[in-house]
Amino acid sequence: MAIPVLLDCDPGHDDAMALLLAVADPAVELLGVTTVAGNQTVEKCTLNARRVLSLAGVSHIPVARGADRPLVRPLRIADDVHGETGLDGPLFEGDPQVPEASTCAHELVVDVLTKHDAPVTIVATGALTNVATLLAARPDLSGRIDQLVWMGGSTERGNVTPYAEANCFVDPEAADQVLRSGVPFTMCGLNVTHQALVTDDVLTAFAGIGTPLASICVEWMTFFASTYKQLWGMTAPPLHDPVAVARVIDPTIVRCVDANVMIETEGTWTAGATVVDLHRYTGRPSNAQVAVELDRTAFWTRLVDAVTRIG
Amino acid sequence: MAIPVLLDCDPGHDDAMALLLAVADPAVELLGVTTVAGNQTVEKCTLNARRVLSLAGVSHIPVARGADRPLVRPLRIADDVHGETGLDGPLFEGDPQVPEASTCAHELVVDVLTKHDAPVTIVATGALTNVATLLAARPDLSGRIDQLVWMGGSTERGNVTPYAEANCFVDPEAADQVLRSGVPFTMCGLNVTHQALVTDDVLTAFAGIGTPLASICVEWMTFFASTYKQLWGMTAPPLHDPVAVARVIDPTIVRCVDANVMIETEGTWTAGATVVDLHRYTGRPSNAQVAVELDRTAFWTRLVDAVTRIG
Amino acid sequence: MAIPVLLDCDPGHDDAMALLLAVADPAVELLGVTTVAGNQTVEKCTLNARRVLSLAGVSHIPVARGADRPLVRPLRIADDVHGETGLDGPLFEGDPQVPEASTCAHELVVDVLTKHDAPVTIVATGALTNVATLLAARPDLSGRIDQLVWMGGSTERGNVTPYAEANCFVDPEAADQVLRSGVPFTMCGLNVTHQALVTDDVLTAFAGIGTPLASICVEWMTFFASTYKQLWGMTAPPLHDPVAVARVIDPTIVRCVDANVMIETEGTWTAGATVVDLHRYTGRPSNAQVAVELDRTAFWTRLVDAVTRIG
Amino acid sequence: MAIPVLLDCDPGHDDAMALLLAVADPAVELLGVTTVAGNQTVEKCTLNARRVLSLAGVSHIPVARGADRPLVRPLRIADDVHGETGLDGPLFEGDPQVPEASTCAHELVVDVLTKHDAPVTIVATGALTNVATLLAARPDLSGRIDQLVWMGGSTERGNVTPYAEANCFVDPEAADQVLRSGVPFTMCGLNVTHQALVTDDVLTAFAGIGTPLASICVEWMTFFASTYKQLWGMTAPPLHDPVAVARVIDPTIVRCVDANVMIETEGTWTAGATVVDLHRYTGRPSNAQVAVELDRTAFWTRLVDAVTRIG
Repeated sequence: MAIPVLLDCDPGHDDAMALLLAVADPAVELLGVTTVAGNQTVEKCTLNARRVLSLAGVSHIPVARGADRPLVRPLRIADDVHGETGLDGPLFEGDPQVPEASTCAHELVVDVLTKHDAPVTIVATGALTNVATLLAARPDLSGRIDQLVWMGGSTERGNVTPYAEANCFVDPEAADQVLRSGVPFTMCGLNVTHQALVTDDVLTAFAGIGTPLASICVEWMTFFASTYKQLWGMTAPPLHDPVAVARVIDPTIVRCVDANVMIETEGTWTAGATVVDLHRYTGRPSNAQVAVELDRTAFWTRLVDAVTRIG
Repeated sequence: MAIPVLLDCDPGHDDAMALLLAVADPAVELLGVTTVAGNQTVEKCTLNARRVLSLAGVSHIPVARGADRPLVRPLRIADDVHGETGLDGPLFEGDPQVPEASTCAHELVVDVLTKHDAPVTIVATGALTNVATLLAARPDLSGRIDQLVWMGGSTERGNVTPYAEANCFVDPEAADQVLRSGVPFTMCGLNVTHQALVTDDVLTAFAGIGTPLASICVEWMTFFASTYKQLWGMTAPPLHDPVAVARVIDPTIVRCVDANVMIETEGTWTAGATVVDLHRYTGRPSNAQVAVELDRTAFWTRLVDAVTRIG
Repeated sequence: MAIPVLLDCDPGHDDAMALLLAVADPAVELLGVTTVAGNQTVEKCTLNARRVLSLAGVSHIPVARGADRPLVRPLRIADDVHGETGLDGPLFEGDPQVPEASTCAHELVVDVLTKHDAPVTIVATGALTNVATLLAARPDLSGRIDQLVWMGGSTERGNVTPYAEANCFVDPEAADQVLRSGVPFTMCGLNVTHQALVTDDVLTAFAGIGTPLASICVEWMTFFASTYKQLWGMTAPPLHDPVAVARVIDPTIVRCVDANVMIETEGTWTAGATVVDLHRYTGRPSNAQVAVELDRTAFWTRLVDAVTRIG
Repeated sequence: MAIPVLLDCDPGHDDAMALLLAVADPAVELLGVTTVAGNQTVEKCTLNARRVLSLAGVSHIPVARGADRPLVRPLRIADDVHGETGLDGPLFEGDPQVPEASTCAHELVVDVLTKHDAPVTIVATGALTNVATLLAARPDLSGRIDQLVWMGGSTERGNVTPYAEANCFVDPEAADQVLRSGVPFTMCGLNVTHQALVTDDVLTAFAGIGTPLASICVEWMTFFASTYKQLWGMTAPPLHDPVAVARVIDPTIVRCVDANVMIETEGTWTAGATVVDLHRYTGRPSNAQVAVELDRTAFWTRLVDAVTRIG
């Protein structure tokens, strides 16, 4: 039976690929998509989520708009990575077919969690603002969340400041509150997503699918590669977000270890760092599963299969 | 026409008096009561709110339970001030007539703000956890809040640490988020509530009402006086919370000035301080109305009238 | 027998008056003057200290230059209060007679503490940078310090930010380190120095002395009054720094209480606050004597006598 | 001509090896040794420094005791790594021949910097407390320091907390002040010292020297290996401190890059992190040379040669 999933995202090139994986992989059933400010403004991210679902030909999944800014800090977007639209590369015109839901993200999630017959997995591939707010407003619903799987953080260095990864840096207070809530938490950080590099082999595999959607995927990943090359000199960009979806689809694709994770919210130079105690220096108990190793072959196979399946 | 009001509180002796004032003063219409952890656990505060409304013979106002802990910090109750029940003094037995609403505080407030035909004033006499959560989950409703009037903070010294007042100290992050939200904000801090001292004259005036409810009020204020005497050596305790209700009832009772207020969330020794820039040292623009002076006569008259009116 | 004193200062109008008091009061013997950046740059403060001693006709007291900036933070001078020279008002030309010592402040203090036959009192009327550095470099000399009496901090509100006084705000890390050192510490904060207001009576008394030095004192205090009037609307300025000297001269002039004092070094809006636990909220043990009340008559008499005695 | 060097250390097994390298390598002339609390109390570290110099047969180099605790924080020793004596392994009895200097570390360093005919290099292999204090007390001497080469920090993860290395964690405020002082600064962090692993080859090479001192070195490194194995499961321990000495002896042994380094002093979970902006995320200018690569062969050859030369 497919695992019921809500996807909270800020597309974003890698979010777009994560959406396609969640839409098409038979192991999961995507019940709704919510958006959050991060890679771009929430307006642009919501438009992009609707565009991706429209490209996938999916019209039954509601897309609802969430927080337009972090809990405390001013919004910092990543237009240097994802461009002016948040999903630069192939040009799109007009309004996508998939509409925006009439309710806000908070209402959509409350509705899904309340009505679905089993607890639901939340996959978050952006800042955790929406999730933190949900848990604060409706702690009574925390038991309706099977687990939270997050693309964010790092066990090593960051990608916005020396020790902070973008999804955590945007809203560290939200991440902190979610971690403290006690909802089962899995962190897929840069240390593992940097094992998901879009090498030429990967691009060739997607090109080989031969559909218009696959061509668009190649264009997205090619644009993404260009900004990673320019900003960090990397020859192949890491496709972060689908790793979190893959972890839900098949846990063996993303090996995790138990560890204590703390979110630095106060450091002058380190705010947004995910402080992962892999070596048990601190004596604090484990509060998360932390992804450490990716089965690359299985990961890319699953992603290519998903895009192929959509047609 | 009466001003529509939601009262968010953590009774507490002075919250109880604020409830009576909000129930009975003709200038305001109390649409609902929500509770928050602070003076005691949210369970006890909710029971106390129901008990006070029951004593007032009011059965049409919903009482809904809110946050059981602050956004980030562990809960710190004030049982040294308000006792084991949160409303020590007269003994009560059994379950009060007024029931707890079937919905949580968040749902009640969303419902009132959505359905009431005019914007609603929120009076908060506890930590701002519920309000912060509301504004995060439903920023679209901020325009439905006419203003927020808060008993909390201080322009001078505090009452929990040298610079922090209890309602702010319990959840400074919530206060910070509410102040940043842009909702019109009035702060009635210790500097003004310490002008509302329960002197013997005041007790005499309440005793003179001659109703069972008035006797209970005298018992509450006498208990409150005993803990203030013990903890701070004060001969008359300040009746903080009704000051915020009085400000809504008649703004001339509580004179305010415009000022910039910042909430200290990071200080080692000052967390929870309300940093009020009365002398414009900082150059930051005004973001709040700050109460500085109480019309004592008008205040006590209004409160005695309210208790008298209930009968 | 006179109490041996080192005066660490940043003149500054009130520092200048403190210097005159320390030079001329028979209860103390001034062994040396060290300077620190604060009211103005250390260059200007050193020049001013030399100028004041020259005006007092004193040539046997060494003046040595100390720290040109706080331990950690960038220097913030108070030229809005003390003017371009740090001692604006009467104009002076040329180089004062009293020279700058060939050694730096650190060497001078080490020399005095090492060689004087009894422990020495340090009176500090600026940021505590020099004292902190001394205690870090030469903890073996802490026993040679009889006590430290500081003009700085406040038990109530501040004068640079809502909760920070200038001498603490300039270098809170230094104040923190000195308080933790265990050297006997007396704090004369704004709460007591605002009892030393330069009213018209005071100016008349100084004018009545009839010496050129007294006229200069009147000019200094008149300039000081003008900036206090402009910045804070005060009709009489508080003459802060001599209060600390007066406490050494005669402890009965400045009544103190034992209390715990902590220095806020981390607050976003409260850095530099002296957190004085007058009501024992925190349970931390007393670590300082905190001035709370000034004997105004005795204070001004002593200061007028000192200026009279110099001639 | 040999480079004049002061070595500030907290022996410690790897400090001991650093001392031997500094004593015996002809490229440097060791002018003095100062000690600081860190791996153990300053008493034990001072005794150990004297013992190492005695074993090396060196009697002309003064050993002076420095700070017994960090600037602000309480002392945290590393007896889990270095044992009860700070230099566990071979047993020593009695007092070593080399005496402790009659002056404190501060006086010794001031004396050397003042009198030596050329600027002096300071190599620090412990917390930077002494250096920070020196620069605060005697900024006039900063020009007499040719450069500071520090074993401390990390560009990656830490060894005390997830992001803090021990020498920085013990006194982050000191490291911060030294970095801000403008003295030329080279950081040899864990990222490079973990390239100096004491493998079996290394132990064999030392054993092959055949002197009593070499046997003691083997015993030290064997003890060090046992605690690293127990604490971190490493099969070969990193010999951190001699890397900093090697950088002075021959810069080509330790390749460095220019980068901005900031010290986190405020983080809740990250205090003591060295935030090294290798990828120029922050736009802050370079303020340090940061070691990134070790020439292992040259390093170990130099160290073996030094021990051999001592005899």
